[in-house]
Amino acid sequence: MSTAGFTLHSLAERFGLEWVGDGECLIHGVATLAGAQSGQLSFLANPLYRRELLQTRAGAVVLRAEDAAASPCPALVAKDPYVAFARIAALFETPSDTPAGIHPSAVIDPAALIDAGVSVGPHCVIGARSRIERGASLGPGCVIGDDCVVGVDARLVARVTLVTRVRLGARVLVHPGAVLGADGFGLAMDGGRWIKVPQLGGVVIGSDCEIGANTCIDRGALDDTRLGDDVRIDNLVQIGHNVQIGDHTAVAGSAAIAGSAKIGRYCLIGGGVGIVGHLTLCDKVTLTARSLVTHSIDTPGQYSSGVPLQESRQWRRNAARFRQLDALARRIMKDNKDNKDA
Amino acid sequence: MSTAGFTLHSLAERFGLEWVGDGECLIHGVATLAGAQSGQLSFLANPLYRRELLQTRAGAVVLRAEDAAASPCPALVAKDPYVAFARIAALFETPSDTPAGIHPSAVIDPAALIDAGVSVGPHCVIGARSRIERGASLGPGCVIGDDCVVGVDARLVARVTLVTRVRLGARVLVHPGAVLGADGFGLAMDGGRWIKVPQLGGVVIGSDCEIGANTCIDRGALDDTRLGDDVRIDNLVQIGHNVQIGDHTAVAGSAAIAGSAKIGRYCLIGGGVGIVGHLTLCDKVTLTARSLVTHSIDTPGQYSSGVPLQESRQWRRNAARFRQLDALARRIMKDNKDNKDA
Amino acid sequence: MSTAGFTLHSLAERFGLEWVGDGECLIHGVATLAGAQSGQLSFLANPLYRRELLQTRAGAVVLRAEDAAASPCPALVAKDPYVAFARIAALFETPSDTPAGIHPSAVIDPAALIDAGVSVGPHCVIGARSRIERGASLGPGCVIGDDCVVGVDARLVARVTLVTRVRLGARVLVHPGAVLGADGFGLAMDGGRWIKVPQLGGVVIGSDCEIGANTCIDRGALDDTRLGDDVRIDNLVQIGHNVQIGDHTAVAGSAAIAGSAKIGRYCLIGGGVGIVGHLTLCDKVTLTARSLVTHSIDTPGQYSSGVPLQESRQWRRNAARFRQLDALARRIMKDNKDNKDA
Repeated sequence: MSTAGFTLHSLAERFGLEWVGDGECLIHGVATLAGAQSGQLSFLANPLYRRELLQTRAGAVVLRAEDAAASPCPALVAKDPYVAFARIAALFETPSDTPAGIHPSAVIDPAALIDAGVSVGPHCVIGARSRIERGASLGPGCVIGDDCVVGVDARLVARVTLVTRVRLGARVLVHPGAVLGADGFGLAMDGGRWIKVPQLGGVVIGSDCEIGANTCIDRGALDDTRLGDDVRIDNLVQIGHNVQIGDHTAVAGSAAIAGSAKIGRYCLIGGGVGIVGHLTLCDKVTLTARSLVTHSIDTPGQYSSGVPLQESRQWRRNAARFRQLDALARRIMKDNKDNKDA
Repeated sequence: MSTAGFTLHSLAERFGLEWVGDGECLIHGVATLAGAQSGQLSFLANPLYRRELLQTRAGAVVLRAEDAAASPCPALVAKDPYVAFARIAALFETPSDTPAGIHPSAVIDPAALIDAGVSVGPHCVIGARSRIERGASLGPGCVIGDDCVVGVDARLVARVTLVTRVRLGARVLVHPGAVLGADGFGLAMDGGRWIKVPQLGGVVIGSDCEIGANTCIDRGALDDTRLGDDVRIDNLVQIGHNVQIGDHTAVAGSAAIAGSAKIGRYCLIGGGVGIVGHLTLCDKVTLTARSLVTHSIDTPGQYSSGVPLQESRQWRRNAARFRQLDALARRIMKDNKDNKDA
Repeated sequence: MSTAGFTLHSLAERFGLEWVGDGECLIHGVATLAGAQSGQLSFLANPLYRRELLQTRAGAVVLRAEDAAASPCPALVAKDPYVAFARIAALFETPSDTPAGIHPSAVIDPAALIDAGVSVGPHCVIGARSRIERGASLGPGCVIGDDCVVGVDARLVARVTLVTRVRLGARVLVHPGAVLGADGFGLAMDGGRWIKVPQLGGVVIGSDCEIGANTCIDRGALDDTRLGDDVRIDNLVQIGHNVQIGDHTAVAGSAAIAGSAKIGRYCLIGGGVGIVGHLTLCDKVTLTARSLVTHSIDTPGQYSSGVPLQESRQWRRNAARFRQLDALARRIMKDNKDNKDA
């Protein structure tokens, strides 16, 4: 939190917005419409919260032009209030004060390359021929295997593992517990026993990507697993070997993408979605929560699967009928024909 | 294991139970009906296992009054045998012998507060302004960021991460690999690129909660993510930013709760359940395994979704008909009308 | 990568294969049909890729006899080209050069047993009465609790946690972030509060198993959780307490198996599958991706559940009808009867 704060008009000028009301009003922080106090900035993006605007005690609010008249306090007017608020809120983030330099408890292979201005936290381990580029930061307990690259200004929050041959672009942000570059799940059955298919590829992550906590991205079998630029992956997501994900695609929590699937650009993959292996999804595909994709998709749009939630007793009756669905459909067809013939 | 053991009547007195048969019978441990040997205590709670009672070689059994006559061995009689057994079994747990004190390999910020009687294991890291309260225990490899609180007698088993602004109540138990307080998945699309919405809130966990292995609980965007008291979360569960979960609710493994959902008290969330964001579930909602909740629920009860498992060939025929379900329903309506008109 | 390389005929002899074309052709590495250069070996197993065979620039290819004539380059002929390729590719794996010996930053209980030829990486912790057997390797940041066994030549890649009473067989491979032996999710409701059921069992993993990144396998409540030999588990899989899994079964990513389920031998559990507790699956059951199993299965074969993906607008209409499925079915039955009666 800045103690000095920002005047409303200085925020307006900084972010190219209009302002309404007292431009000298001082902003010291940000909060929700319901929780904000004087001195705090809030925002109205979703019309459902218009009622909360009327009762807010916020010092100022970011909103669309059409809502300005209803505001009980000074306002910043933005075409996209959520985006404008996000930019302003970033001023109030406490920067994590990771000092540059290598903590003495870190264990670094003599054949690793650590650029200037890098921060390596306590208990990190960095393997042979791996390079940590300028300005990158490794929080406590990160393990970087051999032949990896952590790009310029990338940040590994804590306890991140890059197993081997993982290359992260500039400004990539990886949350705790994520495991990148583990063996893909490659097996072949031979005489009644599994044999392991060697996983000789790597993982390549473009710039400005974010990888969530405890998410797994396996390395490729022969080629690399690849994420484009500005790809955003939430927590506990499974990404199999040789998957390719296009720029600006976002994948919500607990989704799973099986090996060799190709996902386009600007896709929105909902929470818990499953995508089976070797499929192709074109650009701009939106999948609602928990959908399962078993065929390739070549037309942009929104897709879903699943059945609606019901009280269990009713659901059980309907679910039992699902087993008869084909038989019921055949009967309808036949009745129809009989009636016409009659 | 106690080598001295406990007499059956001493257990009865200690836990307020009746006993039947030889009260001097010595109990040295606990086991299943099928696996127990003499000197071990077993239990019968589920009537399905009555047959196993008849054949058990246990030294004694905890059971309901109605099953006492059938027991081949001395018995403790309890209204809820599972609860009574759980309490007795706790006598035979090997306490993990974590010594009080701070391991010399731990790295602790000078601005952290470590109360008396705290155990901090090898390779732990504790950040600025974080407080570890009396009797709390951090196993090996835990990372506590800045501005966190680990409550009185809380226990972090090993490799737990509290990222920032995470406050755990008294006696909270967190299993290995759990990540609390990572950034929520807050994104806004701006001119074809994602911008990150700052995540300025924290995580507040009440007393007596349990958080499973590799589970993720993100910190709030503006307000906090909040769990009440006695909330029990299993492994690999995803809990998004600003979720609220009421007291005594239990969430089974691999479930996922999206951002800003509000879950009531005494809810039972089954394994793999998905709950989409911004919904409200009232108290005492039970969701069976793998259900997906896409609307708020305001009536206590049991809810389900999904379709039953079938042999794949049959399933494929039925699933194909699902695509025609609306058309089939319309035809039925029409036939009905035609028949009536005829 | 071997710089010397292997002649095609030496590979043929080593792996008991036939060869076609120039047996002196030198192989330095492996690649896909599309990506291979001269000096690299590729393979054709899936007939879908036959077109890529015609255009490959690979130095040689492993394929079935029936495809040999079409090959533009020398070939190794195998009954199962994928298996043969997997064996050959292993020659080109870079061995991770983990030196034998104990890193000075590792913290080892005086009552632990470390056999000869063991590698213990930086920042590992090993508890009392645990044994690391001959040739086993613990990568950086592994935490081994009390009373565990890491079998001969087993490999824990990095940041693996064995909580307590976990016994791994020979050659078990565990990927980063996996947590074995955490408390099972055992709870009993008593007077409006949860009480914890002690988890006194352990985890027993047979020989030649593989456990994926961030996967969780809980320890048993009274008996052990058990995996047979050659069981292969992918990433982010949840395995509850007292589960039993038979030899040679494979479980794909993000699947979840609830407590006390018994899975047979040679089962193939697809990605994201859910299996509810206390069920039994016989040998050789295949479950397609995301299926939910709510009843025991006693006949080998392939099983599925779920409904197909559709464009959301169509899907919504069909899904709404699912709520009426039982009513529609009753109407069909009645119409049928009415028509017959008429």
